[in-house]
Amino acid sequence: MARTIIIDAFGGDNAPLSVLQGARMAIDEYGVQVILTGNEDSMRAVADANKISLEGMRLVHTERTIPVEAEPVSLLKEYEGCSMSRAFQLLAEGEGDAVVSAGSTGALVVGGTFLIKRLPGIKRVALATQIPCVGGSFLLLDSGANHDCRPEMLQQFGIMGAAYMEQVAGVKEPRVGLVNIGSEETKGTDLYVQAHQLLAASPISFVGNVEAREVPLGACDVAVADGFTGNVMLKLTEGVAKFFSGELKEIFQSSTAGKLGYLAVRGKVAQFKKKMDATEYGGAPLLGTRKPVIKAHGNSNGKAMKNAIRQAVLMCDNDVIAKTQAALEEYKHRTKEAPQH
Amino acid sequence: MARTIIIDAFGGDNAPLSVLQGARMAIDEYGVQVILTGNEDSMRAVADANKISLEGMRLVHTERTIPVEAEPVSLLKEYEGCSMSRAFQLLAEGEGDAVVSAGSTGALVVGGTFLIKRLPGIKRVALATQIPCVGGSFLLLDSGANHDCRPEMLQQFGIMGAAYMEQVAGVKEPRVGLVNIGSEETKGTDLYVQAHQLLAASPISFVGNVEAREVPLGACDVAVADGFTGNVMLKLTEGVAKFFSGELKEIFQSSTAGKLGYLAVRGKVAQFKKKMDATEYGGAPLLGTRKPVIKAHGNSNGKAMKNAIRQAVLMCDNDVIAKTQAALEEYKHRTKEAPQH
Repeated sequence: MARTIIIDAFGGDNAPLSVLQGARMAIDEYGVQVILTGNEDSMRAVADANKISLEGMRLVHTERTIPVEAEPVSLLKEYEGCSMSRAFQLLAEGEGDAVVSAGSTGALVVGGTFLIKRLPGIKRVALATQIPCVGGSFLLLDSGANHDCRPEMLQQFGIMGAAYMEQVAGVKEPRVGLVNIGSEETKGTDLYVQAHQLLAASPISFVGNVEAREVPLGACDVAVADGFTGNVMLKLTEGVAKFFSGELKEIFQSSTAGKLGYLAVRGKVAQFKKKMDATEYGGAPLLGTRKPVIKAHGNSNGKAMKNAIRQAVLMCDNDVIAKTQAALEEYKHRTKEAPQH
Repeated sequence: MARTIIIDAFGGDNAPLSVLQGARMAIDEYGVQVILTGNEDSMRAVADANKISLEGMRLVHTERTIPVEAEPVSLLKEYEGCSMSRAFQLLAEGEGDAVVSAGSTGALVVGGTFLIKRLPGIKRVALATQIPCVGGSFLLLDSGANHDCRPEMLQQFGIMGAAYMEQVAGVKEPRVGLVNIGSEETKGTDLYVQAHQLLAASPISFVGNVEAREVPLGACDVAVADGFTGNVMLKLTEGVAKFFSGELKEIFQSSTAGKLGYLAVRGKVAQFKKKMDATEYGGAPLLGTRKPVIKAHGNSNGKAMKNAIRQAVLMCDNDVIAKTQAALEEYKHRTKEAPQH
């Protein structure tokens, strides 16, 4: 069945051009249909100037766009009717199957929570980011939606993350780890000690606490953390990667043989860069909403937007949300049956 | 003046051999005197077997060593009189100028806090780790002593870290940054919002919030964080570095030209590895104690122990503790004079 993906055409640094490019590629490659929200005249002018055919795209006009620095909750008030909120409204009304936006994370969390609504029992929606590691990639959540978390929230992040990795990334029985400062279950703050207990009692393959050193080495498929710690981890990984790449480049540029050696392996270096490249993964799903919402990177180019759309399609085709809900129900059911200590 | 450094000879994975080796090198290179605490027979046997001269070393016998997995506070009770606590007692009694140990961080924090005591007004001692970055290195604190922090603790970490980087690392007017999830002063949890205000009012060069992405790129000389976040950052940096090194090695081993190119630049690669090598920095000072205490890495070899001893000497020679105290006094004084809003 052809999916209809609704895209906030004015979210992100390169909007609307990158959105139009990504939508064009996705329509041609995946046979999806696309609804774009935002200023129609502007979209038509940019498409025209860049010779992008609008075939297969439905344009829904809005006057305004929420600025990235606006208070997230203003999406529901002074920015009600902007390109992002219009995208959410269309999804809520059943005009499409998923929303993709490269706009403000905070506003996206507000829209997902209040316009699409959370799954029954879900305390908070979480931002889940796929990050390369030894042997493939892991899903880090929450990577920035919630600074202050309670133990049950971390537990739900683990259950939702496992369902996503199984259904979208095709990982069988994903190993869920709790990011912590030591492997013993008594380590860390009260939040982490309690979250450990709840995760251990959940219907997932919980591998216990994982130290941050082990996460890039492939210790787990799903790394659970509060949104402050997760956001620091996501950004630090980017920073260390950039620091290393710079040093590496300098080293190999420093001699002729080094340059030649680098030339010989540049194909593989490019492969590695591709692996480390955020645009390859496309975007970060917001998990816990009743319908799929994908946050694309703020500086997404056309390819990144295309990949974010592909992720949205995968979430629909694999019924990730129904399966997440089933896993949450199973936990509730199991807990009810278990004797209370 | 020749310094006397007291070393817990039975802390760390490679004790007492690495401690004896490091002490020997430090005595020969820096002209320090060393007191070693621990089982005397065992020290003499290991020195003998490895042909390490004990000249310039005073051995102080203790029966026991605190295991790394013991409750930290047991240093004061069932492990009172062990090699680590004996080292602290000798320092407290004025038998030497500083303590170095590669033993358990938790026990070291307990010993520093209760046997050496904190500087007047200091809420908590912090573990400060020097980490390589673009342009040199930055000091991360707290990197693991305190999981739960209050805003005034983060403020004191910033003041103590600035004094250390200025006096020991020779950085003029060190730039102090608060690790956070956004640059705006309203970002992050309440802890971070309040810490931002306190740091901004402190007698240091506060550069505001720094995102974790910017820290390895050289955004600050002192990165302030709570001990949970700091420990995650420290370990994640190690993990990402290891992940990258592995990928890099594989890439260059994959072709003959790659191998040759690698050969050509291996000197520079070794330099970079040296820069990334924790043993070069030696150890992490515990800041906030009345006398210098250095935590050496648990898997320290002889060179790392030597460098940890050098750090201890630098802390003494540059009077870091008196200068830290002066900075703290200046802040108190300034705050008293300032009109209260």
